[in-house]
Amino acid sequence: MVDYRSMWAELDLDLDKHDGLLQALPGMYENTFLIQERRPKGMDYFDFVVGEIHGLRVKELMDHRAAGGKVVGLYCVFVPEDLILAANAIPVGLCAGAQFSVPDAEGTLPRNTCALIKSSFGFKAGRTCPYIQASDFVVGETTCDGKKKMYEFLADLHPTHVMEVPQKRTPLGRELFLEELRALKAKLEAETGVAITAERLTQATAVVEAKRRALQRLHNTRKARPVPISGLDALLVTQISFYDDSVRYAEKVNALCDELEERVTRGEGVAPAESPRILVSGSPMAIPNWKLHRILEDSGAVVVGEESCTGTRYFSYLVAENGGDLSAQIEAIADRQLETHCACFTPNDERIVDIRTLARDWAVDGVVHYSLQFCHTFANEAGKVEKALARENIPLLRIETDYSDEDIGQLKTRVDAFLEMIRR
Amino acid sequence: MVDYRSMWAELDLDLDKHDGLLQALPGMYENTFLIQERRPKGMDYFDFVVGEIHGLRVKELMDHRAAGGKVVGLYCVFVPEDLILAANAIPVGLCAGAQFSVPDAEGTLPRNTCALIKSSFGFKAGRTCPYIQASDFVVGETTCDGKKKMYEFLADLHPTHVMEVPQKRTPLGRELFLEELRALKAKLEAETGVAITAERLTQATAVVEAKRRALQRLHNTRKARPVPISGLDALLVTQISFYDDSVRYAEKVNALCDELEERVTRGEGVAPAESPRILVSGSPMAIPNWKLHRILEDSGAVVVGEESCTGTRYFSYLVAENGGDLSAQIEAIADRQLETHCACFTPNDERIVDIRTLARDWAVDGVVHYSLQFCHTFANEAGKVEKALARENIPLLRIETDYSDEDIGQLKTRVDAFLEMIRR
Repeated sequence: MVDYRSMWAELDLDLDKHDGLLQALPGMYENTFLIQERRPKGMDYFDFVVGEIHGLRVKELMDHRAAGGKVVGLYCVFVPEDLILAANAIPVGLCAGAQFSVPDAEGTLPRNTCALIKSSFGFKAGRTCPYIQASDFVVGETTCDGKKKMYEFLADLHPTHVMEVPQKRTPLGRELFLEELRALKAKLEAETGVAITAERLTQATAVVEAKRRALQRLHNTRKARPVPISGLDALLVTQISFYDDSVRYAEKVNALCDELEERVTRGEGVAPAESPRILVSGSPMAIPNWKLHRILEDSGAVVVGEESCTGTRYFSYLVAENGGDLSAQIEAIADRQLETHCACFTPNDERIVDIRTLARDWAVDGVVHYSLQFCHTFANEAGKVEKALARENIPLLRIETDYSDEDIGQLKTRVDAFLEMIRR
Repeated sequence: MVDYRSMWAELDLDLDKHDGLLQALPGMYENTFLIQERRPKGMDYFDFVVGEIHGLRVKELMDHRAAGGKVVGLYCVFVPEDLILAANAIPVGLCAGAQFSVPDAEGTLPRNTCALIKSSFGFKAGRTCPYIQASDFVVGETTCDGKKKMYEFLADLHPTHVMEVPQKRTPLGRELFLEELRALKAKLEAETGVAITAERLTQATAVVEAKRRALQRLHNTRKARPVPISGLDALLVTQISFYDDSVRYAEKVNALCDELEERVTRGEGVAPAESPRILVSGSPMAIPNWKLHRILEDSGAVVVGEESCTGTRYFSYLVAENGGDLSAQIEAIADRQLETHCACFTPNDERIVDIRTLARDWAVDGVVHYSLQFCHTFANEAGKVEKALARENIPLLRIETDYSDEDIGQLKTRVDAFLEMIRR
C-alpha cells in the first residue's frame, strides 16, 4: 500500500485521529463483506476501492486540482453532479456514515440531530475526512432542518454554497429550483473559469447517467430468485457511486452486471431461493453504515432493494429528451432532480407508490422502514408507508436507529422476530 | 358561567376528555397568574378571556359562522391574518400548548417530535380543541420538518391548506411566497364567496396592525426599571392575541398600556428594581405553556421580553407604505411576513442582531434561550446566539424542554444558579 501520509498532512487532516479511523475499517470490512459466501468476482474492484478509501481516489482528486481543476463536495442527491462535471470540476460525496466522527460534532450541533448530519459535520470539525479537505467548496441543500442549519456551522469551517430545494411540487417551486441551478452554474463558472456550454453539459449528463443506468441494471438483477448479489454488496456499490470516478465506475458496475446476469441465467444465487426477500426503505446509508443490511443478512434474509438516496432515489431518474440547448438542458436537470421522491416534499405520496411497485416487482416478502433517529421527515412517513402496505398485506418493520453499535442486539431480536413471522 | 356543553357537543368534542382538560386549567391559572402581586388592573380582561377560553370566544366564532362567515385556523405567524379577515373570515390560533393532548398524537407522529407539534395534532386527534372543531379549514405552513409532515396527517382529519414558506431570503423565494399568498387569497375567496378588494384588505391590515402596535406599546413599557408588568402577564397578553377578537383585543391592550405607562411615570413596578432582567428567546409558547416564565419569575427574575413568535416576532413587523392597489398590498404583506426573523431561514443572522438590540435596549441582565426539545432550527441557533452574546459578556442559559412537568425541579436548579451568577 502506498503511503499517503504526506498527502493527508498536506490536506491538514488530524493524522493521529485519522489513523484511528482507518485502523478500524479493515476489520469491520472483513467481518461484514469479505466473509460473505459466493461473492461475485466483480466485487473485487469495489473491495479495492474501499481498501483505498482515503488513498487513491483522494490522490486522483489532488492530481485533478494540481492540473487546475476543482473538486466540489456534496451530501445529497439533489445536487446535480453533471452540472459540476460540466465545469471540469469533480463532484464528490463527502464522509457522513461513521459513528467515529459523531463526537466531534457534539458541542456544536444539538445532541438531537441525526447521526448522518452529526457524522458529516464531525468529519470536518475533527479533520478526518480527506474528501472535504480536498474540496474547493461544498454544495449544501435545504432538504431538512438539521442539514439546513448544519451548513451554517460548516460555512464557518469550509466554503459552503447552499441551494434551496422547494418543499412543495409547484410550478413556482420548480422555478425556484431552476434559479438555484442557474446560481450554481454561475458559481461553478466563477470558481473554475470554465464556461458550461450545451456541449459540455450534454457530455457530463451522459457520464452521470451511464452510471445511473449501470445501477439500474444492477438493481434489475436483484429481481431474480435466488438473488445473484447480497444486499450488502449492492448497497456498497451504490454508496461508492458518490465518490468514485464516474466513467470507470460505470464500467465496473456493468462488468459486475455481466457476471450477475450470467448467474441469473444459471439460476445461481448468493443465498437460498427461499430466503426472505427484504426491501429496505427510508433514510440514506453512507459508507460505512452497513449496520441494518448486515443484521438482516446475518439473520438469513436477503435485501433485494433500497428505496433510498443510496438506492433507487439516486439512480431512477434520468433527464427527459429536450431541445439540447443549455437552458432546455438545465430545465431537464431540474425536472430530473425534483422527480426525487424524497420525504422533504409535502405531500410525497409518490414514494408510497414506488415502495408498492418495488415490493411487487422485486417479489418482496417484507419491507424494513429505516429512519435515522431524529430524521423527522422519514420518521413521519414511516407510519404512512406502514398503513399503505398493511392494505396489501405486506409486512413492515419500523427501525429507528443511529450509527452506534449499542442497539445491535435489540435490533437483531426484532429482525429475527420479523423474519420468523415472514417465514411462517 | 354559561353552560357551553351543547355547543361543545355540536362541535363533536370528546366531552369527557375535554372536561378533564378544563378542570385542570383554573387551578393552574390561579397558581401561576392570580397569586402574582401588584398585578395591573388591566389584566382583569385577560383573566376573563382565559376563564372563558373554550367558551365565549368559541361562541363568537360559531355565531360568525351562523351568520355566514368562515373561521380559519392557523398555527404560525407566517399565515397572514389580514388576508383572512379581508374575506370576512376570522383567523384563529389553534390549541398547541398543552401536555394534555400530547398522548393523543403518539402513535401517529414520531415520539421525537416537539411538544408543540404533538400537542397541536393531539388536540385534533383527541377532539379536545373547540377552535379547530369550529374552523372551516386550517392553513398550515412549511416552517419546519415536523409541522410540514404533521399537516399531512392533519389533512386526513380536517380540511388543511399548506402554504410554502421559502428557506432562503432570495428574490425568487419572495416570488414563491407571493404566489402562495395569491393561492391563499383564491382559496379564501372560494370558501367565503367574498371578493378580497383593496379596500377590504386595507381595513383588515389596519385592524391587525392596530393589534400589533398595541403589543409594541406593551413591549416598550417593559423597558422601564422597575418593570410595570410581569413577564408572565405580558406573555399571556401576547398569547391571547392569536385568538381574541382583534379590535376588542387592541382596545384592551391599549387600556392596559395606559395603566402601565402611569406606573412607569410613578416609578412603580411589579418587582424590585434590582430583580434580574431576563430576555427569553427561541421557540414559541402557546397557551398554557407558561412553564419557563413561571420558573424564572418564581426564582426572583423578571422577564422583560420574548424574542419569539409569541413575542417580538409576532408584533414587530408592519406593512410598508405601498401604492394601495391590491397587488401592491399583497406584496407588502409578503414582505412583512418574510421579514420575520425565524430560524426556518438560512442564514438567519438578523435574529442575532435582534437579540443583541433587545438585550441592550431592554437593559437585560441575561438571556434564556428556550428550545422545545426536537426543535432542530432553534436548537441549532442556540449555539450561535450563545457565541454572539459571549462576545458582549451577556450571560446566556440554554434551556431545552417539553411540556411535561417532569424536569421542573431540574430547570429550577439551573435557573437559580444562573440568576445567582447574574446577581454576583
